[in-house]
Amino acid sequence: MARISAESDKHGDLLRLGASVRARRKGLGMSQEALADAAEIDRSHMGKIERGERNVTILNVIKIAEALNIKPSTLLEIAGL
Amino acid sequence: MARISAESDKHGDLLRLGASVRARRKGLGMSQEALADAAEIDRSHMGKIERGERNVTILNVIKIAEALNIKPSTLLEIAGL
Repeated sequence: MARISAESDKHGDLLRLGASVRARRKGLGMSQEALADAAEIDRSHMGKIERGERNVTILNVIKIAEALNIKPSTLLEIAGL
Repeated sequence: MARISAESDKHGDLLRLGASVRARRKGLGMSQEALADAAEIDRSHMGKIERGERNVTILNVIKIAEALNIKPSTLLEIAGL
C-alpha cells in the first residue's frame, strides 16, 4: 500500500480506479466514511484511494468491491482496466 | 506488497488469482521467469504471487495482465473475482 507519485501511475490507472470507486459509491448514496467502515479500511486511506494516490492491494480492492456490492472484475472493467 | 498468511487470504482469493496467472502464463507457453521479466517484477516475487503468498498491488496486477496480453478485469474474472 505504497504512496504513489503521478510518475508511478503512468497510465492514470489509479486515478481511473479511484474515480470508479467514487462514482459507484455516490451512485449508492454512500458516504466515503460509510464505505471505509464497510470495507474495514482506514478513512483517510480510503480518501487517498479514491484520489488515486495509493497503489491499493488486491485484497483491499476486493473488500471495497464487496462493500460496493459489485464484483472486483466489474469494478476494474468500469475503470477501463 | 505484504506477506500474507492463509488466515489473511480468508476466501482463497490470492490463491485463485495466482492460479489464474499461472494458467494463463502456461497457456501462452511462457516461463515464470519470462513473465516476471516482461512484467518487470522480481522473479522470486512472481513465484510468490502465483502461489497466492503475496497481497499483490493493483499496479502489479496491471503489469502482469499486460505481460499476459489480457485485461486486468478479465484476469480477475477468470479467477472468479
